[in-house]
Amino acid sequence: MKDYLDKDPWKVIENGFFKDYNKITESIFSIGNGYMGQRANFEESFDGDSMQGSYLAGIYYPDKTKVGWWKNGYPEYFAKVLNSVNWIGIDLLLGDQKMTISPDMISNFRRELDMKSSLLRREMTVTTKEGFVFKISSERFCSWTQKEIGSIDYKVKSINYSGPITLVPYLDFDIRNQDSNYDEQFWENVDQGISDTGFFVQAYTKKTFFEVRAQFDVVCYGLQPSKIRNESIPMKALKYLEYTIENNEEIGLQKTVAICSTFNFDKKDLAKATERILTYALDLGYDVLKAQHCEAWANKWNESDIVIEGDVAAQQGVRFNIFHLHQTYSGDDDRLNIGPKGFTGEKYGGSTYWDTEAYCIPFFLSNAPEKVTRNLLMYRYKHLGKAIENAVKLGFKDGAALYPMVTMNGEECHNEWEITFEEIHRNGAIAYAIFDYTRYTDSTEYLYNYGIHVLVAISRFWQQRVNWSNDKESYVILGVTGPNEYENNVNNNWYTNYIAAWCLRYTQQVLNEIKANNPSDYNLKFVELNLSDEELSEWDKINNFMYYPFDLENQLYMQQDGFMDKSLIPVSDLSDSEQPIHQNWSWDRILRSCYIKQADVLQGMYFFEGNFDKDTIKRHFEFYEPFTVHESSLSPCVHAILASKLDMKDKAYEMYLRTARLDLDDYNNDTKDGLHITSMAGTWMSIVKGFGGMKIKGNVLSFTPFIPDNWESYSFKIKFRDNILSIKVGKSDVEVAKLNDGNLSLFINDELIELSNNQKSFILYFSNN
Amino acid sequence: MKDYLDKDPWKVIENGFFKDYNKITESIFSIGNGYMGQRANFEESFDGDSMQGSYLAGIYYPDKTKVGWWKNGYPEYFAKVLNSVNWIGIDLLLGDQKMTISPDMISNFRRELDMKSSLLRREMTVTTKEGFVFKISSERFCSWTQKEIGSIDYKVKSINYSGPITLVPYLDFDIRNQDSNYDEQFWENVDQGISDTGFFVQAYTKKTFFEVRAQFDVVCYGLQPSKIRNESIPMKALKYLEYTIENNEEIGLQKTVAICSTFNFDKKDLAKATERILTYALDLGYDVLKAQHCEAWANKWNESDIVIEGDVAAQQGVRFNIFHLHQTYSGDDDRLNIGPKGFTGEKYGGSTYWDTEAYCIPFFLSNAPEKVTRNLLMYRYKHLGKAIENAVKLGFKDGAALYPMVTMNGEECHNEWEITFEEIHRNGAIAYAIFDYTRYTDSTEYLYNYGIHVLVAISRFWQQRVNWSNDKESYVILGVTGPNEYENNVNNNWYTNYIAAWCLRYTQQVLNEIKANNPSDYNLKFVELNLSDEELSEWDKINNFMYYPFDLENQLYMQQDGFMDKSLIPVSDLSDSEQPIHQNWSWDRILRSCYIKQADVLQGMYFFEGNFDKDTIKRHFEFYEPFTVHESSLSPCVHAILASKLDMKDKAYEMYLRTARLDLDDYNNDTKDGLHITSMAGTWMSIVKGFGGMKIKGNVLSFTPFIPDNWESYSFKIKFRDNILSIKVGKSDVEVAKLNDGNLSLFINDELIELSNNQKSFILYFSNN
Repeated sequence: MKDYLDKDPWKVIENGFFKDYNKITESIFSIGNGYMGQRANFEESFDGDSMQGSYLAGIYYPDKTKVGWWKNGYPEYFAKVLNSVNWIGIDLLLGDQKMTISPDMISNFRRELDMKSSLLRREMTVTTKEGFVFKISSERFCSWTQKEIGSIDYKVKSINYSGPITLVPYLDFDIRNQDSNYDEQFWENVDQGISDTGFFVQAYTKKTFFEVRAQFDVVCYGLQPSKIRNESIPMKALKYLEYTIENNEEIGLQKTVAICSTFNFDKKDLAKATERILTYALDLGYDVLKAQHCEAWANKWNESDIVIEGDVAAQQGVRFNIFHLHQTYSGDDDRLNIGPKGFTGEKYGGSTYWDTEAYCIPFFLSNAPEKVTRNLLMYRYKHLGKAIENAVKLGFKDGAALYPMVTMNGEECHNEWEITFEEIHRNGAIAYAIFDYTRYTDSTEYLYNYGIHVLVAISRFWQQRVNWSNDKESYVILGVTGPNEYENNVNNNWYTNYIAAWCLRYTQQVLNEIKANNPSDYNLKFVELNLSDEELSEWDKINNFMYYPFDLENQLYMQQDGFMDKSLIPVSDLSDSEQPIHQNWSWDRILRSCYIKQADVLQGMYFFEGNFDKDTIKRHFEFYEPFTVHESSLSPCVHAILASKLDMKDKAYEMYLRTARLDLDDYNNDTKDGLHITSMAGTWMSIVKGFGGMKIKGNVLSFTPFIPDNWESYSFKIKFRDNILSIKVGKSDVEVAKLNDGNLSLFINDELIELSNNQKSFILYFSNN
Repeated sequence: MKDYLDKDPWKVIENGFFKDYNKITESIFSIGNGYMGQRANFEESFDGDSMQGSYLAGIYYPDKTKVGWWKNGYPEYFAKVLNSVNWIGIDLLLGDQKMTISPDMISNFRRELDMKSSLLRREMTVTTKEGFVFKISSERFCSWTQKEIGSIDYKVKSINYSGPITLVPYLDFDIRNQDSNYDEQFWENVDQGISDTGFFVQAYTKKTFFEVRAQFDVVCYGLQPSKIRNESIPMKALKYLEYTIENNEEIGLQKTVAICSTFNFDKKDLAKATERILTYALDLGYDVLKAQHCEAWANKWNESDIVIEGDVAAQQGVRFNIFHLHQTYSGDDDRLNIGPKGFTGEKYGGSTYWDTEAYCIPFFLSNAPEKVTRNLLMYRYKHLGKAIENAVKLGFKDGAALYPMVTMNGEECHNEWEITFEEIHRNGAIAYAIFDYTRYTDSTEYLYNYGIHVLVAISRFWQQRVNWSNDKESYVILGVTGPNEYENNVNNNWYTNYIAAWCLRYTQQVLNEIKANNPSDYNLKFVELNLSDEELSEWDKINNFMYYPFDLENQLYMQQDGFMDKSLIPVSDLSDSEQPIHQNWSWDRILRSCYIKQADVLQGMYFFEGNFDKDTIKRHFEFYEPFTVHESSLSPCVHAILASKLDMKDKAYEMYLRTARLDLDDYNNDTKDGLHITSMAGTWMSIVKGFGGMKIKGNVLSFTPFIPDNWESYSFKIKFRDNILSIKVGKSDVEVAKLNDGNLSLFINDELIELSNNQKSFILYFSNN
């Protein structure tokens, strides 16, 4: 837990240089536009603690698997998002001497992340060993309107130096991933040099053969260079801008870079496209580009801001999370997804996990155009073939699909049998996301044309994955890992069994809907999906005879078979030195303990809240919450939502705090590796679904809001079907504004409220507060 | 399955060169003396398929762990027995040209392993590209009487070549392990050159700093070399013996090598010791050394031979297994143990597994001097401190010990959490071996002075490893892997629970014995072992309230909780293409299946046969046998023994066949990696404990013999307490001979037979045959 950054509603500010935290700051101050991402590394050569990171969405390398003991079915590689061309670099020469900035040369430092407009600014004074003093300032952004463009405004002012100075903006492709399994370099040089516009480097990835071209030019302002010369060597392109500077003189440049790849362009068009995009950006100029970029961000915020009055830290925290979610995923491309660290570090290889469906999709559904979520769903639809292949490798047949635990292109990347082969509930989350999207948007276009294929293949997986137990006279699911990864290879994980049966029910329900609405379409689908009446009745039977572990005495669903055999000692009885247990206990001890890494039974009760009465949820919350260690960043938000529902306001707020400033305060001591992007959606969920109590009842939005004691008010917007709503919760009232025409029905505290076309807002006063 | 070797009661013979099977043959024809081991590599340079292997007991390297996903508690290294100095090398030069033998240059090839005397002989004709023909023959052994000595008799006869020929006997320490995790060389050069006697190389192992000196000299016979010169370069010492040879002339040499290490000598004495040992051997000369060696082997066989009449393949098979067990472990040194591949390959790192206690110790108890087994038990006693440290790493305290799954020096080496942390039944096998040794020898010296320390520490482990289940109102053991490694992280593995409770009972029983026999010694022990009455009564309570999974309907102990939920489909219903399942199924599918890798519940019923009536054993055998795939070489022998007891002769013989010629016929297609040394004891067990029905009833040996239909007779010797017996089972009778003075009582077919001092033998005719 660290507290070195200034609190501000719209900015994150580092005042003074915290050299020991530089890698953390580099993660936190990352900028990105869904197409590329850049850690807050210095432009200049720097010899303090730093992890260079420039990433391009979709450009990955299949790094050869490293494993101690091979198991049949393990994938050959782990896909890694690549550390790519360093496009921000600007070196300084005094005479012939390159300036490498050391932490102790830095004073008057200020780094500022402007979240309103996704701008990174830095100012500092640098004093060389010789005593020369310079003021350096920079501002940069990854353009939201021209996704291939990154641009930097860079100024150097001499305080006491007179003489030759050279600015050297450059591109560098000689880059390695720190997490390479076998210390390989993943990039191979193609070409470098001068083109019609600007200066370029071009390289390709080994094995995957993605080719990337980066090209840049600069505009100098103020004092002009006396000489300009270019240098290109393999993997590098450098421009030398030579000046003679006097005391108090300032030199400035705007470096604009276009980065294009064969992920988006044909190889034969790559050079031309890069040229064209760079030329266009240079023609617009830095100021216009920046203005367009800021306007786009203003629109984003208009859609998805949460305003909290009375608590600056909370305000900064929630905006920080919303900001980074948008930076990571813009929803333009259905081949992209959301890595747990986004583009802020190398960890988890930038790949896709079930985090997307379980945590991120609810955020994007409420806060972004429909196509953003639709593209995330199309991503899985397009991977259906690979998911079927993946299931075949594990012995399934007849079109059953198991989506990978971790993937870049649809193929499984992970290599721990207890996760890769057994954490199969991920299939359920993908089906649930289809359901969630459909009820939010009230559109069946995806569902009937694409989703149904995914649902049928997932149902086929469950059908083959269950087996009949003579002993239990039920269908059981043996050998799984549930959401709580502190249990491996268990039998009848309640969450998995529940979501499996639900998948079968939901698929049937969708098929029945199609049949009722359009019998001839149904008949076509029946053939296309190769369905049979036997198969459908088998799904019915499994759904009806699914086994759910249940403890009669306590009237509780058990996390899995045998859970009540454990020593049930609450987390509060553990000593501080034992926590986090994953750093202090051996794995077997964790496994046989009762401790829960992240919501498991409770994850199910959150997903399917409508199927359980409040007493049931309360009983389960009170049983499982004391054993939950929340050692996954994905856990507290679910508890916050349920605690809110159960009127446990203090618990809800406690859980909210564990997600809201996770990275800003480096709560888990790992922010230096990158930000917890996917769990950031949990902060939004905690407020909107937790404090706001948002859910869908039937087809109607419902809120049961409360406000934490130390807040004055909070407000958020929700996109739901054809409506955009703004909800503001105060100490004693809740105000609903309808931002579009048309009627709107919603529940507030179970009271049905109907706003006609003309009625734009409504205030409800709390009876008790 | 291969059948290219000639069958012979005392030899293994390769007639003609099977170049594609050369690595298999190299394993099968390995020689060793418990101190060193040597694969049957050629002396000459050879460019066919080969895996060079020269190993020294106890000399290992801690190779840095390779693991995909690190778990808390994993060991930093995996200890590997090292491929060591190549001491057999003899090169041939024709003029200046080194002869490298290719498979197609070889004719009239015969390789012969003389198991009676542990001699490896090879004859062949070699034809060079130029058409020169030579007859080459060699014989070698690792001396049983001078353990540091290896010696080779080597002859070359020219058939049609006249001219200069040079024999180059050499030592080479520039050796790598093929299984190195990171492609390191483990040896570092120390020195090389000429000493008073012979020529040496000396090197040390990185990290472990074992230093090894190998020194050799040669005696030439027949035609003498015209010139002798020496060459030494780092890691190598070569002697050039130059001859001029005519057609039909023969040259011969005897190369004698002494290999000494700091495992056995002080570093400062290493050079002198090697010199002294080599000098002594050279003084004796090849023929005397060999005669002493052969005599020692004759004595070995006299102790432990099994003679089978009427089945040469069976005879060869059982002798092959007994032979290699002796070659691997001589019992001279309590720092050594028995690796699953002995000194015949690199696999499994030459480390110690529970195989030793569960399979090898019964063999050595019956067939070798008492001290051999005692040293195996002392090995574990001396590792007790490390076993306690190992338990501390996993969260245990107060002197609880968990012996490692795989070890070289007492530290855990293995890195799969489901094995390393969870296959804890190994502790039970170590306690069982102490019990077995004590009842065999009727000696309590080890038990009271050493064993009790091991037993108490193991009991403390079980005490802390169980937990009380409120649900079951019993003690349970959660999260284990039983002997059947096709189940991981299961709850209440019956075998583990049973042997845990037995450990607690047995430890109490031993303490009570000490108390009854010698109360003052007991009081001393009570203090020394830091016992308390509370602890002892806690053990009692755990023993009394241990949970055993039981299926009421079928009256069966369950392998673990939930076993009856599986799809119970017998192995016979699997297609051939699916087997072995570990090569064809993904791990999760294996885990949730009912298939049993090796005896598990049945392993317990074999260990504790006396505690179950025949009907109970039969019920369990009939239930579990059809699900057992025997994909461990350790499995069939246990089934053979139980089937014999249950009068299922055909099943017993079928199971026997799966162990007896496992390596000779390359049954599992992996003999090229080395022999299955530890499972070789299973062949002996199948015959003596299976067909012979040997067990101990009370304090009396008991036999219930039968003979497989296609055998004429079989006979074996048994050392039991003060007696040595020879048992011969024929078609219609069993003959018992007592080979020592004194009385002997034994049961045959439950009939008590008493031989007085004077009565040396006894024949019992079978009533039914």
